[in-house]
Amino acid sequence: MLSFLSLLLPAAGLADPLPSWNDGAAKSSIETFVARVTDPASADFVRPEERIAVFDNDGTLWVEQPMYTQLAFALDRVRELAPSHPEWQANPTLKAAIDGDLKTLAAAGDKGLLELVMVTHAGMTPDEFQQIVTDWLARAEHPRFRKPYTELVYQPMLELMAYLRENGFTTYIVSGGGIEFMRPWSEKVYGVLPAQVVGSSIVTKFEMVDGKPVLVRQPALNFIDDGAGKPVGINQHIGQRPIAAFGNSDGDLQMLEWTTAGEGARLGLIVHHTDGEREYAYDRQSSFGRLDKALDAAPANGWTVVDMKNDWKTIFPPAG
Amino acid sequence: MLSFLSLLLPAAGLADPLPSWNDGAAKSSIETFVARVTDPASADFVRPEERIAVFDNDGTLWVEQPMYTQLAFALDRVRELAPSHPEWQANPTLKAAIDGDLKTLAAAGDKGLLELVMVTHAGMTPDEFQQIVTDWLARAEHPRFRKPYTELVYQPMLELMAYLRENGFTTYIVSGGGIEFMRPWSEKVYGVLPAQVVGSSIVTKFEMVDGKPVLVRQPALNFIDDGAGKPVGINQHIGQRPIAAFGNSDGDLQMLEWTTAGEGARLGLIVHHTDGEREYAYDRQSSFGRLDKALDAAPANGWTVVDMKNDWKTIFPPAG
Repeated sequence: MLSFLSLLLPAAGLADPLPSWNDGAAKSSIETFVARVTDPASADFVRPEERIAVFDNDGTLWVEQPMYTQLAFALDRVRELAPSHPEWQANPTLKAAIDGDLKTLAAAGDKGLLELVMVTHAGMTPDEFQQIVTDWLARAEHPRFRKPYTELVYQPMLELMAYLRENGFTTYIVSGGGIEFMRPWSEKVYGVLPAQVVGSSIVTKFEMVDGKPVLVRQPALNFIDDGAGKPVGINQHIGQRPIAAFGNSDGDLQMLEWTTAGEGARLGLIVHHTDGEREYAYDRQSSFGRLDKALDAAPANGWTVVDMKNDWKTIFPPAG
Repeated sequence: MLSFLSLLLPAAGLADPLPSWNDGAAKSSIETFVARVTDPASADFVRPEERIAVFDNDGTLWVEQPMYTQLAFALDRVRELAPSHPEWQANPTLKAAIDGDLKTLAAAGDKGLLELVMVTHAGMTPDEFQQIVTDWLARAEHPRFRKPYTELVYQPMLELMAYLRENGFTTYIVSGGGIEFMRPWSEKVYGVLPAQVVGSSIVTKFEMVDGKPVLVRQPALNFIDDGAGKPVGINQHIGQRPIAAFGNSDGDLQMLEWTTAGEGARLGLIVHHTDGEREYAYDRQSSFGRLDKALDAAPANGWTVVDMKNDWKTIFPPAG
């Protein structure tokens, strides 16, 4: 009888849905929250249509060191296009990007970065851009781990997204990164459909070209989905306040605040990068994914802080 | 045995899913399209994740005569707020709106309309605005049919949306109307979740008020989801080209063009208001929902044109 029951256990869904999480406060805060909002007898029950969970991408779902993946893409692309644009050599920011002079590029600040994005991300249809991204991801390699970027996603977070979806949640990405930089691969890698990706965007224009209707990406900024922009982007795209938010940096602070200020059971969670050996260790001093104000705000707001080194059994999915 | 089988028929899904549609070219164009994209053996098979259908709202899903419902809302609201805003009397456009002088208001054009929207739609949180809309819809009545506006939705289109969803489609609203004017009731009335509503919007800003994070609607335009804006709004929100589009006016022309220009099986459909007795008859000369260029474009593009009078058995859902 015992062996018969034990055979049934996994099929009955009693297997651990978060096997890459060590037992501890972080894991149990997730499980407790999910139990509260999904139990129809609980005062905190939330109907499935309102079980919205939002995830930052860079540093929360995949690696953001030594630089944001989208910046690595822009640098590769500006170098690739440079031979047909000799005029870029006269522009100090673009010249720095072409030469890989990151110090000069960083000194140009947001304005310089925007200039780089405009020359590398505009002038084509969304379909064409997504193909360019797909082709790049197929051949690009992370400088330290020597793997495609799409394999450098966090296994514990993949399990968490799947666990939430199995419990009736809809999982959204809400990222400062480009919305059309993420959409070509978000379904395959995260199980997140294009419509469930919220991100920064450039202006897109409808045009008739040779009698055919097309959309063309313009060299002009449309929306920055970062910091105080995240709740705005969520409201615009989703139209409901999430009940759970997952981030890792100060760019996620307002998303965490707005999500957890709602009534009823809420979950706010910060991934703290504490594992220089298996991944990276950084927080208050980092130029990519700085975690300072949000880390200070966590205790008073009751947010879970994941200690990557101690809370995660593995970092990346098994090879293959 | 026969009576036993006939009892099974409806349960087996063999009942007509579009009972309010008369047999004819319009109905069969819908059924043929759905069969083609859902049959795994068909060359035109489309996987469920890509079965995106977009619906205009005003004049396609609900009545838009004698004026857009949102305009009726704005006029009621400007009158309601007028006593606390004596300064509005000095503004010719707002004074016309308060006095119900639609001729002067119309002469003020888009600029006048925008002014009216700004004073009636901004200055509160999205939640507060949605409550204002909900309260208004509960008490407002259509001047001719003497019913709540949310009951003046087209029964054949409700059946069509449900039929598409049963066949694995996701149904989106893509309207020139305000995104947050539609979201409070779109799920209840159409079965369309807030995240599946695309519409025009004003700027929203994140603020900390008394230590609490809130979003506040600003008196500034963010996006006009009409005409050439519709494919842009679809691309921004959904991130996939739809395979079916439903509209009724020239404001839907580019959405229909962009949808049906895609590869594979596509369905474009225009609701032509030909029934002055049961609803309204209007097209090329109407100031609300003008249908002129899109009607001319229909034959060459293979779009289905619904003749409301002859194709629809009933217009509105049964009372109660």
